[in-house]
Amino acid sequence: MADEFTSVAVSRDAEGTAPFDEVRRLRATGLLPAAIPASLGGGGLDWPTIFETIRPLARVDAGLGHVVAYHFLQSWRIRLNEETARIEALQRRSAERHWFWGGAGNPRDATLELTPVDGGFTVRGRKFFATGAQVSDRIVASATRTDDDEKYAIVIDAHLPEVVHHDDWDNIGQRLSASGSVSFEDAFVPDEHVLGPSEQAGARYRPYASLSGLSFQLALAHLQVAIAEGALAVAADYVRNGTRPWGTSGVDRAVDDPYTRELTGRLASATRASDALVWRATDLFAAAEEKGWELGDDERGELSIELSAAKVETSRLALDVSSRVFDLTGARATASRYGFDRFWRNARTLTLHDPAVYKAREVGDRLLTGEFPEPSGYS
Amino acid sequence: MADEFTSVAVSRDAEGTAPFDEVRRLRATGLLPAAIPASLGGGGLDWPTIFETIRPLARVDAGLGHVVAYHFLQSWRIRLNEETARIEALQRRSAERHWFWGGAGNPRDATLELTPVDGGFTVRGRKFFATGAQVSDRIVASATRTDDDEKYAIVIDAHLPEVVHHDDWDNIGQRLSASGSVSFEDAFVPDEHVLGPSEQAGARYRPYASLSGLSFQLALAHLQVAIAEGALAVAADYVRNGTRPWGTSGVDRAVDDPYTRELTGRLASATRASDALVWRATDLFAAAEEKGWELGDDERGELSIELSAAKVETSRLALDVSSRVFDLTGARATASRYGFDRFWRNARTLTLHDPAVYKAREVGDRLLTGEFPEPSGYS
Amino acid sequence: MADEFTSVAVSRDAEGTAPFDEVRRLRATGLLPAAIPASLGGGGLDWPTIFETIRPLARVDAGLGHVVAYHFLQSWRIRLNEETARIEALQRRSAERHWFWGGAGNPRDATLELTPVDGGFTVRGRKFFATGAQVSDRIVASATRTDDDEKYAIVIDAHLPEVVHHDDWDNIGQRLSASGSVSFEDAFVPDEHVLGPSEQAGARYRPYASLSGLSFQLALAHLQVAIAEGALAVAADYVRNGTRPWGTSGVDRAVDDPYTRELTGRLASATRASDALVWRATDLFAAAEEKGWELGDDERGELSIELSAAKVETSRLALDVSSRVFDLTGARATASRYGFDRFWRNARTLTLHDPAVYKAREVGDRLLTGEFPEPSGYS
Amino acid sequence: MADEFTSVAVSRDAEGTAPFDEVRRLRATGLLPAAIPASLGGGGLDWPTIFETIRPLARVDAGLGHVVAYHFLQSWRIRLNEETARIEALQRRSAERHWFWGGAGNPRDATLELTPVDGGFTVRGRKFFATGAQVSDRIVASATRTDDDEKYAIVIDAHLPEVVHHDDWDNIGQRLSASGSVSFEDAFVPDEHVLGPSEQAGARYRPYASLSGLSFQLALAHLQVAIAEGALAVAADYVRNGTRPWGTSGVDRAVDDPYTRELTGRLASATRASDALVWRATDLFAAAEEKGWELGDDERGELSIELSAAKVETSRLALDVSSRVFDLTGARATASRYGFDRFWRNARTLTLHDPAVYKAREVGDRLLTGEFPEPSGYS
Repeated sequence: MADEFTSVAVSRDAEGTAPFDEVRRLRATGLLPAAIPASLGGGGLDWPTIFETIRPLARVDAGLGHVVAYHFLQSWRIRLNEETARIEALQRRSAERHWFWGGAGNPRDATLELTPVDGGFTVRGRKFFATGAQVSDRIVASATRTDDDEKYAIVIDAHLPEVVHHDDWDNIGQRLSASGSVSFEDAFVPDEHVLGPSEQAGARYRPYASLSGLSFQLALAHLQVAIAEGALAVAADYVRNGTRPWGTSGVDRAVDDPYTRELTGRLASATRASDALVWRATDLFAAAEEKGWELGDDERGELSIELSAAKVETSRLALDVSSRVFDLTGARATASRYGFDRFWRNARTLTLHDPAVYKAREVGDRLLTGEFPEPSGYS
Repeated sequence: MADEFTSVAVSRDAEGTAPFDEVRRLRATGLLPAAIPASLGGGGLDWPTIFETIRPLARVDAGLGHVVAYHFLQSWRIRLNEETARIEALQRRSAERHWFWGGAGNPRDATLELTPVDGGFTVRGRKFFATGAQVSDRIVASATRTDDDEKYAIVIDAHLPEVVHHDDWDNIGQRLSASGSVSFEDAFVPDEHVLGPSEQAGARYRPYASLSGLSFQLALAHLQVAIAEGALAVAADYVRNGTRPWGTSGVDRAVDDPYTRELTGRLASATRASDALVWRATDLFAAAEEKGWELGDDERGELSIELSAAKVETSRLALDVSSRVFDLTGARATASRYGFDRFWRNARTLTLHDPAVYKAREVGDRLLTGEFPEPSGYS
Repeated sequence: MADEFTSVAVSRDAEGTAPFDEVRRLRATGLLPAAIPASLGGGGLDWPTIFETIRPLARVDAGLGHVVAYHFLQSWRIRLNEETARIEALQRRSAERHWFWGGAGNPRDATLELTPVDGGFTVRGRKFFATGAQVSDRIVASATRTDDDEKYAIVIDAHLPEVVHHDDWDNIGQRLSASGSVSFEDAFVPDEHVLGPSEQAGARYRPYASLSGLSFQLALAHLQVAIAEGALAVAADYVRNGTRPWGTSGVDRAVDDPYTRELTGRLASATRASDALVWRATDLFAAAEEKGWELGDDERGELSIELSAAKVETSRLALDVSSRVFDLTGARATASRYGFDRFWRNARTLTLHDPAVYKAREVGDRLLTGEFPEPSGYS
Repeated sequence: MADEFTSVAVSRDAEGTAPFDEVRRLRATGLLPAAIPASLGGGGLDWPTIFETIRPLARVDAGLGHVVAYHFLQSWRIRLNEETARIEALQRRSAERHWFWGGAGNPRDATLELTPVDGGFTVRGRKFFATGAQVSDRIVASATRTDDDEKYAIVIDAHLPEVVHHDDWDNIGQRLSASGSVSFEDAFVPDEHVLGPSEQAGARYRPYASLSGLSFQLALAHLQVAIAEGALAVAADYVRNGTRPWGTSGVDRAVDDPYTRELTGRLASATRASDALVWRATDLFAAAEEKGWELGDDERGELSIELSAAKVETSRLALDVSSRVFDLTGARATASRYGFDRFWRNARTLTLHDPAVYKAREVGDRLLTGEFPEPSGYS
């Protein structure tokens, strides 16, 4: 699918419309239930395998990679709640119907309101940066009950008429990530879709539940390395086939230019270092996930620090590589038809998900004072 | 005019059409003949003053700044040729008629052909990256005579039907710079528009004539600093008025975030250093120009090295600042309607005019071996 | 003198003893009163000229450059006080006797105590980082009166037995800067050496008086550029004469290595940018000084910001260049006898005078909120 | 041993004498035969375990880490030759006697001469950068036979009177690495110490034999990460215990300074990325070594590229971290007694082993043209 998509990546980026068609084609591959346990009818793939699957797609278009990675995480992360029977029923159904999952969880927006009604609740409010919600079947969210002020993890049917997809994602990058806003206008949430009190952070915090926020950080780190890899691959191809050496370079082929050779290698070396860190973090994440509810604060804390380091490094990497590859390709490669700027636009958009500088601070605190960050939607 | 243009800069960048309207408005200000000697009816402004005039415009849109800076240089640089009487007649006419000037001189394209005909010549060929030609009245070029293989400086009437403006500039940045290609299909060039043999480089090289290529390098350096200044100004404004502090920052206003304060200052400090270098280079350039035909190889060489250093530094600066300002503004500032990515797109396009790495090599050679670069269209 | 010193720079750095001999030789040149007005018998040189004089020395040894630059500033800055008659008498005497000046003003130490006695005061306390005091004739300081708690600018005879020079400067860099600590054990300060209440900062702040702290920042910036220039010069010389090209470089001479050429040029370009900024700041400083007591807050503030930017940039530059030049010279150049590491050791020591990151913050504040920094011993 | 050594690391670095005593103490631990197969009486540790053992020591002193890492590699790499019986006899003896191993293999020096004599050969010549030879029992080298011009791998008894250790390692860093020169003045090499023709590179190249050069690259990469880790640990400790916050920081403890927190984290994040890459390269190396003579060109090539990337990244890291940690500690930490500059001096010396820029070029070539580097003593 990554190969197929390559030929339309530039035009799809220019359009920037939500990836309904891409999700349809992904569904056809049978991959959608990959992150659901085999015992519930899913693919039962482990996280390293899932991220290996996402990488080639993210290299071609990190926006598409984003929405797909988040789908896998959303379809899985409902497990980080207490209501096991309800969760398993949902996952079994998801595997049967090949649901696509989105989320509506931006921690910086006002919380959604959950009002008890007969047989369940209604949910009300608006969330921005709701990656994937627009093209999804089910949306994972959390909402605060109006009666007891307690926050709950919930799942919402994305096709309900009371779920309004604003189709307002028009940003400079990650254009295919369907990250616009979604409103819930008293949309019904049956009891079976209420998965338990939110335990990601705060008073009810449990380490395992908090893997939710960390899982998105891991996905972002993978996407950011994929942007660097994708930009380098496209640039190397252009240097091989599309460009002349500079007049005073003294060489006949662009690939023989000493500065082109060195810069390519410098960027590729940096990419390898970030890549190694991200895979190491992936292994830590997989180990933590395997612990389940037994996961302890320290192991969770160490994972969080490794992920923060990965964010710092991959953010710097993605921005640097996606900008500098043009030094390899030269001036003509700025023609819009090549769309080579999309890597930087994607990197620039993605790296702002939450500020890397605050992640660096957490890594620093760990070394200076031994403290782990306060668990939150980001750390 | 810079202030006026601010409100439409984002939409004009999105359109990316040639700046016919902007040139019209610039003409109305009476500024077009600024670089023509007062004795010939021009403004007689010196270069520091001209660049001070261009800077505010370039901060708002470096593409527009590009086409305007090149206009001033083209209208002046015809003086770097032997046929003084013809040159003065052209400049006098230009001052009277408020001509706008473009160029068609990309050294990496095949040279234009100049065929003798009755009363002059016809010119034939195509040039890419012909900044400003499309919106100009007169085009400065050089062309090789088919009979004696000698290269001549010429001026071409941009409105002739045999001058085909392809309107094919559709690049990721510098979108208003009208830098597409132009073809000459046996366009007539009267003798009075032939300014003498090209002495910029090669066997007939004379230091004064070679200021032509250096003048464009100076303009590029100014534009690159302007991009950094423009991006910083826009970002600072957004931080003041449009963004919230990060959740764990511990401050109430975004302007009080310690990392925002420091990064703003770091980027601004780097901008000041490049700015100081560019103005020092401008003074060197003005001094060299004042020497006229008396200009010597060493003074020309030193100017060339200072300009190469300026290119290296301003290229790095423009890319770095235009990319990093988003760390000040945060994720919401990636919405397309703000158009904040145009600074990076402009920087990325402009900095590829010719490779900065080869300019660094020239600066290095000077220090290592004492040698100046071979004069060329770039150095 | 710079040329002469070159041959012993490495051994003097290794010894690291206070530069008594160097001060003696500097005295012999007659240069010591250069910063004292001609009307008082001094050289009456302006600041650009003085810094041009210091630069070659600082390129060879920034520690020596440090102590000499501070001498000129100390001999001048006593003018930034109210007691004009006393000041002029001191400067006249200094010019006659070719005094060398040091200081004892580290703002981070406890303030000195000034106790009224017959005919003057006694001063008591200890100051660290008292650059030049040990090799000086007169020391500039400020001290707080024990009776009225007011701070006064004073001058102390460095040769008094109650002035104890601890000779304890043994740091990794700036080894010849005589920056150890000095104690005053009830040293007598006659009334004629009390120059007025301190007006550098705080309640009695006057812009002109505050040029004192800024003048040291300017000197540091010059020294930091000189370190970069010195390191580059030494490295280029070594590349020309002392090293072989790398085996797979494909060139016969080290100066022809493409990466050596480019890196040299990149570092030299960065050095030029910082240099241009520092000279621009020098001009601003000279203009501010010329205003005298008429100097206003805004002009003072703008100067302060330019100096902060210069600190940020020159700090980065000095560290980067002094470390990276080894990539030009190769492994054999790490032999201790070459002493090439002294540039980095000097840079690393000097750049910590006060944290550049807080200077960046000040530059950022100016852009974000329009505010100037609170005048202090550093800003 | 690392812990013990911490207290004397600064004074030992200042002395810079060869680590005879340290080798003695290491021998006492019984660790010396760790890299020799268990079947021959050695420790039989795998490479990840060996490097885990070396890391703590290298964090304290990279020079000592260097000589120890090279010992393990030298004691092992004799296996990369044809004369299995002789090799096993040597290793068995080494394990019994707890030999310490050094090398004399700098590829940039003239080759050693090997002259056939009764019962073996005599070796003649001088090698620089002979890390460990001075403190070793046995030296690994290669030498060219004077009769047939063929190069052979040999082992030399370091205690022979004809082996002259010049004790001339006096460099700015890696001072305890005993990396001075050694001369062989017709030293006798019995037949049993001739291990076969050199197959590392050239006509007789075999991939397995070429792991020799790569193994040193791997060690250098580990040492470079260890320098960064060591510098950070020392700086973090100083910040916790030895320094005051800056006056305008607004915090009470240095560990709470926002810039200290962030910079610590930024440097630590970069260290983690390099670290992850180096361990991944270690696994690749261990896998390649396990293949033995079956190792193929492609697998060897991929390992070489991963190691080149590791060199590029760890070189940059070690220099950057060891220089920037002073921004955490402040000016007083430049006192010589702390010896904090030794991390940078070690990094600067070690990173020049061979130019990282040429390693970057190799990584670039792989991406641009698919080619692996020509096997050599460095790649």
